[in-house]
Amino acid sequence: MAKAQRKKASKKDLIVQKAASMFREKGFPATSMRDLAESVGIEAASLYNHIQSKSEILQQIIFRISDDCNKQLADLDNAGLTNLQKIESVTRFHIQMMFQRFEDYHVMINEWIHLEAQPLADFISQRRNYVQCMEGIITAGIKEKEIKPILPYIAVLTILSAVRGLEFWHRSQKHYTAEELEENMITYLIGGLKA
Amino acid sequence: MAKAQRKKASKKDLIVQKAASMFREKGFPATSMRDLAESVGIEAASLYNHIQSKSEILQQIIFRISDDCNKQLADLDNAGLTNLQKIESVTRFHIQMMFQRFEDYHVMINEWIHLEAQPLADFISQRRNYVQCMEGIITAGIKEKEIKPILPYIAVLTILSAVRGLEFWHRSQKHYTAEELEENMITYLIGGLKA
Repeated sequence: MAKAQRKKASKKDLIVQKAASMFREKGFPATSMRDLAESVGIEAASLYNHIQSKSEILQQIIFRISDDCNKQLADLDNAGLTNLQKIESVTRFHIQMMFQRFEDYHVMINEWIHLEAQPLADFISQRRNYVQCMEGIITAGIKEKEIKPILPYIAVLTILSAVRGLEFWHRSQKHYTAEELEENMITYLIGGLKA
Repeated sequence: MAKAQRKKASKKDLIVQKAASMFREKGFPATSMRDLAESVGIEAASLYNHIQSKSEILQQIIFRISDDCNKQLADLDNAGLTNLQKIESVTRFHIQMMFQRFEDYHVMINEWIHLEAQPLADFISQRRNYVQCMEGIITAGIKEKEIKPILPYIAVLTILSAVRGLEFWHRSQKHYTAEELEENMITYLIGGLKA
C-alpha cells in the first residue's frame, strides 16, 4: 500500500474507533458528525474524505464484530467439540468480546436499531440465525444427555443477557480481573447446563 | 374518602400508569407533559392539579416497585428458608415483576438515571444495599455448602441480568407462557448454583 493510502486507512480506523466510543457513550442519534470530527481532531468537512455518512460508520462497527461472532460459531462445526463444549466456547467468546472490544460490542447490542433499512434487515436476520444455531446446539446437547432438559430459548437468552450484564462491571468500582469474571461466569452458566 | 377525593386519586393513578407506559416506550427525557396529558385525555395544564412534575411521577413509579423489592427481600429473613431457597424466592420475585409489572420494572431498571439528585442518591444507595444483601445470602450459602463456590458478585449479576433479558420476550413472537419461562429460568439459575 502506498504511504498516502496507508495514512488514509489509519485515519479511517481512528474515525471508526472514536465513533464507537462516542456511540457507546452518547448513543448513535445524539452523536453529531461535528462532535466526531472534533474528537478526531479534523474539520467536519474533511470527515467526508474518509467516510460517507454516520450510518456507514455504524454499519462498519456492527458488522465487523457481528461477522467475527458468526465466524467463531461457524468454526465450531469442525472443532470436534461436544455440544456443551461448543456452548462454553461461544459463551467465552462473548465474555471476551465484552472485555476486549467493549465499545464495538456495546454498540452492536444497543445501537443496531439505528442501522438503515437493508443493513438492519441483514443484522436482524443474522442475529436470528445466530440464536437459532445456539438453540440447535443446546437441543442436540439435551438429546445426547450432556445438557439438562431446559427450554433452549431460555438457555440462550440467559447466557447472552448475563454477558450483557458485564457492562455494569465496566462502570463499577470492583477490582476483579477479566479472567476471574470469565471463569466464574463459566462455572455458573456452563456448570448450570450440565446434565 | 369523599367521592371527589377518590376521583382525584384514581385520575392520578391513571396518569402514573400512562406515564410508566410512555417512559418505557420513549424514555423519560423524550416524554413531554403534553404527550402525557394527551394520552390521559386531559389538558396539559390540568395535569398539574394531580402531579407536581414529570420528575415526581418518575420517582413514584421507581420507588413503588423498588420498595416492593426491598420488602420482599426483608421478609425472607424470618421465612425459615435455606440460603438457596432465599435466592430462588428473590429470583422468582424479579421474574414475576418482569411479567406482571413490566412497565414499572422496565422504568426502574432503565430510567433511574433521570431521577433528581436526592431520590437518585437514595435509589443508588437502596440498590447497593439490595445487591449486597443478595451477595450476603450467596456467601452464607457457599459457607454452608448449599451453594457451589462462586464469586457472589457474578452470581447476582447473572441472575439480575438474565431477568432483565426477559424483556426481549415481551417483544418477541415466541408463544411461551410466563410460567414456562419462569420455571426454565429457575431450573437454570437455581440449579446452576446448587453445590
